[in-house]
Amino acid sequence: MTELFVRSASLRNATLRALERRGVSLVEIAELTYFLQKDYVGGLTRELCLQNVEHVLAKREVQNAILTGIELDVLAESGRLSEPLQSMLRSDESLYGVDEVLALSILNIYGSIGYTNYGYIDKLKYGCLAGLNDKSTGRVHCFLDDLVGAVAAAAASRLAHRHRSEMETDLDDEE
Amino acid sequence: MTELFVRSASLRNATLRALERRGVSLVEIAELTYFLQKDYVGGLTRELCLQNVEHVLAKREVQNAILTGIELDVLAESGRLSEPLQSMLRSDESLYGVDEVLALSILNIYGSIGYTNYGYIDKLKYGCLAGLNDKSTGRVHCFLDDLVGAVAAAAASRLAHRHRSEMETDLDDEE
Amino acid sequence: MTELFVRSASLRNATLRALERRGVSLVEIAELTYFLQKDYVGGLTRELCLQNVEHVLAKREVQNAILTGIELDVLAESGRLSEPLQSMLRSDESLYGVDEVLALSILNIYGSIGYTNYGYIDKLKYGCLAGLNDKSTGRVHCFLDDLVGAVAAAAASRLAHRHRSEMETDLDDEE
Amino acid sequence: MTELFVRSASLRNATLRALERRGVSLVEIAELTYFLQKDYVGGLTRELCLQNVEHVLAKREVQNAILTGIELDVLAESGRLSEPLQSMLRSDESLYGVDEVLALSILNIYGSIGYTNYGYIDKLKYGCLAGLNDKSTGRVHCFLDDLVGAVAAAAASRLAHRHRSEMETDLDDEE
Repeated sequence: MTELFVRSASLRNATLRALERRGVSLVEIAELTYFLQKDYVGGLTRELCLQNVEHVLAKREVQNAILTGIELDVLAESGRLSEPLQSMLRSDESLYGVDEVLALSILNIYGSIGYTNYGYIDKLKYGCLAGLNDKSTGRVHCFLDDLVGAVAAAAASRLAHRHRSEMETDLDDEE
Repeated sequence: MTELFVRSASLRNATLRALERRGVSLVEIAELTYFLQKDYVGGLTRELCLQNVEHVLAKREVQNAILTGIELDVLAESGRLSEPLQSMLRSDESLYGVDEVLALSILNIYGSIGYTNYGYIDKLKYGCLAGLNDKSTGRVHCFLDDLVGAVAAAAASRLAHRHRSEMETDLDDEE
Repeated sequence: MTELFVRSASLRNATLRALERRGVSLVEIAELTYFLQKDYVGGLTRELCLQNVEHVLAKREVQNAILTGIELDVLAESGRLSEPLQSMLRSDESLYGVDEVLALSILNIYGSIGYTNYGYIDKLKYGCLAGLNDKSTGRVHCFLDDLVGAVAAAAASRLAHRHRSEMETDLDDEE
Repeated sequence: MTELFVRSASLRNATLRALERRGVSLVEIAELTYFLQKDYVGGLTRELCLQNVEHVLAKREVQNAILTGIELDVLAESGRLSEPLQSMLRSDESLYGVDEVLALSILNIYGSIGYTNYGYIDKLKYGCLAGLNDKSTGRVHCFLDDLVGAVAAAAASRLAHRHRSEMETDLDDEE
């Protein structure tokens, strides 16, 4: 029987596989989150960052944005998009903007506090974002660098919210 | 000792009190959600809609948007804003737009699928939104009508996502 | 010589051709704008609506969103996307949401006042949006219906802003 | 006679006065734009940046966001907001987020390419943003720092679009 809709597990697995095939590990994304939050969350571990990245990647909206962006990157890489889209993605045209639009849809799920963190690591090309922006490889990562930065910043937002909740619990315990 | 930050419980209670003082009950918001989803979710009850509205209102970003919007409404109602902001809020100036901006920040937490539901009930002035838009009362609800519509549409989005998860579980059980 | 970037004229022409090939005329989009604004702008003509639609379509961000969305529709229609994206676009999956994300990026250029108009016509499936939502045709318009609704609502926002400016000029002349 | 709406000139003047009264000059905002674009636009002058800042500030949505944000800052500074909003704005609570929401509504008018520039200067606290973030002064700039960063980043986006148009014209002349 034809399924009426795509199952959540299928969507999640496809997202993780797509990231892996495009050479991005969850550990690398977690490293970006660690860089963003280490000065604000006492005793932060890379393991905790990884857990938050995994939570972000479990959201359907995040999966849909990632699958769509990577699909466009892959199609552009093998020259299968029509013009002028093909040229814009291949050259990572600075005025294209649809990559930032998809990134923002990921950030929004965790509120507005992630906007500045996203902008910051995107501009610094920190960590794995440097490799994704290397135009000499022939790879097309027009969308992927923005999506990875957005997932890392969204995980940082999630961490900030959770950290506050824990501080409140600690204060309650002291009383 | 001065607290370092506003506690979550204090924020939540302030939000619920603010809505109540401005004459909006959670049951009325849930009625909007019911109207939006009744044709798509079989066996939907008003009680389930209310639970989803309560979940939306438990989010910090939602609380911040509501508290800020209602504060501006109340200040305008008693003539305590400076011009030209005072006149714009008092007349619910159609080109103001900051009310829609705050509404969108609520919708975004639950992804983009709530945009059309929000626009639809806002335009129809369905249910309690009709009263909030009655300009003859002397009350200022420049922000509140948009915030209430956004909470109802966000609850509808949350319901749609949960309903899908349940359908998947049912399919799994049949196998 | 290889061009360093895609020219504006090439982007504009590609956008207009893409809409035409997918069966949407600018006159049909203008009809949606007319429906949205006729009760608010005295003496509104379809010709003025068409001019505003053309202005919206001249914006680079709007062109990029339309070209990207239509490309994905076309690829899905001929079965050239990878799974699970292929199935989601083919079935116009209600929880996909990337179509609404691209639509919002068009609305945002003209401020937040277009959100409700977009939601309203999208839900009503007014005018040409009915045909685009007809699933029996074998065509895939997962993105196109949202993009067309957004262009029409953006043109309505532009009209509203311009109409206000003209009212101000008239008031100045009376003085 | 009571005016039916607030005049554009009144809105524009109020915005410029509000920025001035809060100690932010257009020249300082233009300096942020210069910092963001100097490496990308050959021969860029501070004067051209200032012109672009003025164009951004002429947009109604930008004026509405600035007037609303500054009003809340001023009310908080003199202790006239109700709790818990008063405490959140006074302490520039990192999880508040409504300030970033208003900033984004400014950026959106010029497309998505300004998101990263906004995040970058906000995080660096470059130029006049450092002073606005100095918590030792007793002043409340919870909204103003984000609004100023957003105007500067929006002006940078406008510059980038215009610069491209000029490059195209030059290429046409060469042919």
